[in-house]
Amino acid sequence: MSDMKLHPMKEVKIIIEGEHIHFVTDVLDRIKASGYTVFSNISGKGHHGYHEGHLMFNDTSSLQMILTVVPEEKLDPILSGLKPFLERHSGSLFVLDASVLRPDRFDSKEA
Amino acid sequence: MSDMKLHPMKEVKIIIEGEHIHFVTDVLDRIKASGYTVFSNISGKGHHGYHEGHLMFNDTSSLQMILTVVPEEKLDPILSGLKPFLERHSGSLFVLDASVLRPDRFDSKEA
Amino acid sequence: MSDMKLHPMKEVKIIIEGEHIHFVTDVLDRIKASGYTVFSNISGKGHHGYHEGHLMFNDTSSLQMILTVVPEEKLDPILSGLKPFLERHSGSLFVLDASVLRPDRFDSKEA
Repeated sequence: MSDMKLHPMKEVKIIIEGEHIHFVTDVLDRIKASGYTVFSNISGKGHHGYHEGHLMFNDTSSLQMILTVVPEEKLDPILSGLKPFLERHSGSLFVLDASVLRPDRFDSKEA
Repeated sequence: MSDMKLHPMKEVKIIIEGEHIHFVTDVLDRIKASGYTVFSNISGKGHHGYHEGHLMFNDTSSLQMILTVVPEEKLDPILSGLKPFLERHSGSLFVLDASVLRPDRFDSKEA
Repeated sequence: MSDMKLHPMKEVKIIIEGEHIHFVTDVLDRIKASGYTVFSNISGKGHHGYHEGHLMFNDTSSLQMILTVVPEEKLDPILSGLKPFLERHSGSLFVLDASVLRPDRFDSKEA
């Protein structure tokens, strides 16, 4: 069991309406996130974006969550790529500290 | 790309049997959590609560997970609201540190 | 509302192809993780393991995610039990700091 050392990474979760999933995965592909997982058929209650300065709520909507784990240096490109989108649409983005066994698997320059 | 600053929040995940989901979402609505996401049709193995001082296990059951992200000051009301329930029923609650781009979206006093 | 104190634990998420789920749950059962939750019918893009020294990618595949929360002393046995598997197969493992209300529920020596 050579090394059980864990390497620090960032876990990013993005929850959006299902129709917009490709916008998010395109951003992840562009910055070469090494992979992501999509959770479908989830539901939620939350903000529905802003409309004429008012906060719009919807009761439930069909959502998807994209989970990715990236080296810290890829966090800013993800945030920059998604922030304008998230300001115009419903959706949330959370960042958490995570760690992984094999950092090379998450740093796919060759992806 | 004005500010990529992230703001600290708490991610709370609650895993319960599907029949009890409204108890949890009522607590979240009451303390004005700004939103939550529900994952359905998940399964699990775990505690089944306590029965006459014995820990009861079930092999698999139909579960739901509720994920919410709240400002730290809303964590205690969530824990207080759910703890008695979780002591009498099967279920788990985890808290993690998370951060978000737009803290105002998660602090919906007007919700 | 006696104590709202939270106790530190480790959240472990393992994402693998669905056919291998029992390998993972067997490891968790063996080290007496007190429980776990399985998310099915998720999809993903990522590494497909190594084949003759080359990294193999697949576009999408049917995946499952296993989520468990364990005391820190059970983390190493999980990593040791799964690392050889993850080196030969597609899959990812992330570790995050989490906290829980009831640590006894997650330390099932009697499980």
